[in-house]
Amino acid sequence: MLPLSRAGDGGAPALVALFTSTSAVCVTGLAVVDTPTYWSGFGQAVILGLIQVGGFGIMTLASLLGLLVSRRMGLRTRLTAAAETKSIGIGDVRAVLLGVAKVSLLFESVTAVGLTLRFLLGYDEPFGRAAYLGLFHAVSAFNNAGFALYTDNLMGFVTDPWICLPIAFAVIVGGLGFPVLFELRRHLARPDRWSLHTRLTVWTSAALLLLGTLFVSWSEWTNPGTLGPLDTPGRLLAGFFQSVMPRTAGFNSLDYGAMNSGTLLGTNVLMFIGGGSAGTAGGIKVTTFVLLFFVIIAEVRGEPTVHAFDRRIGDRVQRQALTVALLSVGAIVSAALLLLEITDFATDRILFEVVSAFATVGLSTGITADLPGSGQLVLVFLMFLGRLGPITLVSALALRERQRLYQLPEGRPLIG
Amino acid sequence: MLPLSRAGDGGAPALVALFTSTSAVCVTGLAVVDTPTYWSGFGQAVILGLIQVGGFGIMTLASLLGLLVSRRMGLRTRLTAAAETKSIGIGDVRAVLLGVAKVSLLFESVTAVGLTLRFLLGYDEPFGRAAYLGLFHAVSAFNNAGFALYTDNLMGFVTDPWICLPIAFAVIVGGLGFPVLFELRRHLARPDRWSLHTRLTVWTSAALLLLGTLFVSWSEWTNPGTLGPLDTPGRLLAGFFQSVMPRTAGFNSLDYGAMNSGTLLGTNVLMFIGGGSAGTAGGIKVTTFVLLFFVIIAEVRGEPTVHAFDRRIGDRVQRQALTVALLSVGAIVSAALLLLEITDFATDRILFEVVSAFATVGLSTGITADLPGSGQLVLVFLMFLGRLGPITLVSALALRERQRLYQLPEGRPLIG
Ligand SMILES: [K+]
Ligand SMILES: [K+]
Repeated sequence: MLPLSRAGDGGAPALVALFTSTSAVCVTGLAVVDTPTYWSGFGQAVILGLIQVGGFGIMTLASLLGLLVSRRMGLRTRLTAAAETKSIGIGDVRAVLLGVAKVSLLFESVTAVGLTLRFLLGYDEPFGRAAYLGLFHAVSAFNNAGFALYTDNLMGFVTDPWICLPIAFAVIVGGLGFPVLFELRRHLARPDRWSLHTRLTVWTSAALLLLGTLFVSWSEWTNPGTLGPLDTPGRLLAGFFQSVMPRTAGFNSLDYGAMNSGTLLGTNVLMFIGGGSAGTAGGIKVTTFVLLFFVIIAEVRGEPTVHAFDRRIGDRVQRQALTVALLSVGAIVSAALLLLEITDFATDRILFEVVSAFATVGLSTGITADLPGSGQLVLVFLMFLGRLGPITLVSALALRERQRLYQLPEGRPLIG
Repeated sequence: MLPLSRAGDGGAPALVALFTSTSAVCVTGLAVVDTPTYWSGFGQAVILGLIQVGGFGIMTLASLLGLLVSRRMGLRTRLTAAAETKSIGIGDVRAVLLGVAKVSLLFESVTAVGLTLRFLLGYDEPFGRAAYLGLFHAVSAFNNAGFALYTDNLMGFVTDPWICLPIAFAVIVGGLGFPVLFELRRHLARPDRWSLHTRLTVWTSAALLLLGTLFVSWSEWTNPGTLGPLDTPGRLLAGFFQSVMPRTAGFNSLDYGAMNSGTLLGTNVLMFIGGGSAGTAGGIKVTTFVLLFFVIIAEVRGEPTVHAFDRRIGDRVQRQALTVALLSVGAIVSAALLLLEITDFATDRILFEVVSAFATVGLSTGITADLPGSGQLVLVFLMFLGRLGPITLVSALALRERQRLYQLPEGRPLIG
């Protein structure tokens, strides 16, 4: 980044610039420097631009790949009204680009207006500053980036529902993914007409939000460093906020450095699962997670095929979900091993940082800036891998499905 | 356990007795008290008996269940020469019981003789004591129990290959599982005639031993608390020993309390994988692990069916492997969360303890005895679950396979 971007004298070192731009363009939100004080207004605008470009890019790319996969599978797609073909044409691209732009603009504007009003009326910010704060945090929220213009992120607003709830709303909507939003726009009130993908995404997200809120609130209820000093509504608000954010926005209204190890481990699970496909969320995605859950259910019931919401789940899709989940575990464990060998931080913090980077969440117990350069490079690599890996992997897998022309005899090793 | 079992006055408290007997009969090896000083000779003999009964029981039970599953699947089984039927008769039971007894007796005797000679000649123990030490550690090794008659387990013998290698040998053989041993007895020198199960087990075990040795040696090479003070052959011997033991014997010649967090995490992976099916090993088993690996390979190559060593792997077996692996992860994460909430130990130690208990390994960073009673009960439950869960789950799944008489339309959610 240019010297212009820095608040003080001179330019940012290459690693700081690399880390920050990766974090912004992958909409992760991990930071090695303090966003409000280290970067100038211009630098912050660049970060905001990278977030918007990154979020827009990942949403359109993933939606187009999803469309291509659906077409190739011969399934009816509801994303566009174009005729059934096995490829996607310029019309599809235009429809997706316009659709994503519209939906982003709509939700970012609504959130920005809400936040601006609150900054204006509740915190006596001058109008220009309030509008800037509103816009920055709305874009950062809808794109699940998690960058904030406060040194302590959003900890100053822990009990303010007028800040927390609009941001949580934008995060949840952005994290559902474009295909779901596209469908909900037409059939919001008619759940019986939702596609399997939308049903899986919406109901799993709802269940994870509820369970997450209960878990975080319960686990931190009396922790003097986090929920302890708050009153009951404040604790519930913060518990809700910190169950929304691991999937995968990464804002924090509580201090993760002061959290129980148990909460960190539970949050790792939420971060690993992530949000909806073809949106700005990271992680293995809720559909991947819940499909594996349905596979287990079917297996435990002894059923020969896997069903979810009255639809059969093909063997290939099951294996793709398995592949995404296990390769993600492999990447996380490998990166954690590497960081444990090159630093002296405790396992809970390293694991949290690694999952946060891979799932492009951006929550941190505060060790990001203290990692050695090599450790920061591991995180940079992990952010790219987590952002692009699952999407490209699944698309590649789905598009490469081939027939085998011969059958080998079946073997049946003992397992378990 | 009876007062007679204790070395000092009075009987052991109920929880100590429960924990120790569970640990012995599940051949885990975790201990809340110091085996050589807390228990009398009689108590130690009871532990040895429980180990032998537990190891024999799990080997025969798992072999019979495996036989039943193979029969029901209509696959030719090489375990017994009985005619093809879909059930198992008294002849099969007798053959398995006798076979397991023979193989146990054979390998335990050989190991016991080797160890006795070493204790006699190398450590000037009187004959009776040397024979007792030899027998105890041979039985404990072949049954993958990991109980030792030294307060520091086998740390005193860290550079003695005449103790470490026979024990490692017995552990590896016992951990392959009865079906593999049965087959190797007939076709040891003819790998081309091995069944798929034997190939998967032998080659995966060999690969894990090699990688484990390299990893542990590399990760601990200069650690002053573990490999640092040793010379190079000693370091390699200890590295090899501590790559054998996580899968799943649980002896230790190094101090796990002094190990790097990175080694602990890597050891968690080895413990989780465990040893061969239908043996005394725990974990999800090498076949389960490597099948998932082959699924990923097939998926990444875009192949419609999964192959391993020229055999096709059926969809049901894939799903069973997936079910075992994911439910195991679920059990481990849940137990770790619970222990993190009720104790103040660090995540790396809790995770290590939980994986060790679930995979019936018995390695510990030393926190077992310091856990509160509720925490020890969690481990007791986990040892039972890890010992019996995967075997019974897989058998139940395999035997309950049903046909579905109707087909629902296929749905294809986006994943990743
Ligand atoms: K984020
Ligand atoms: K053991």
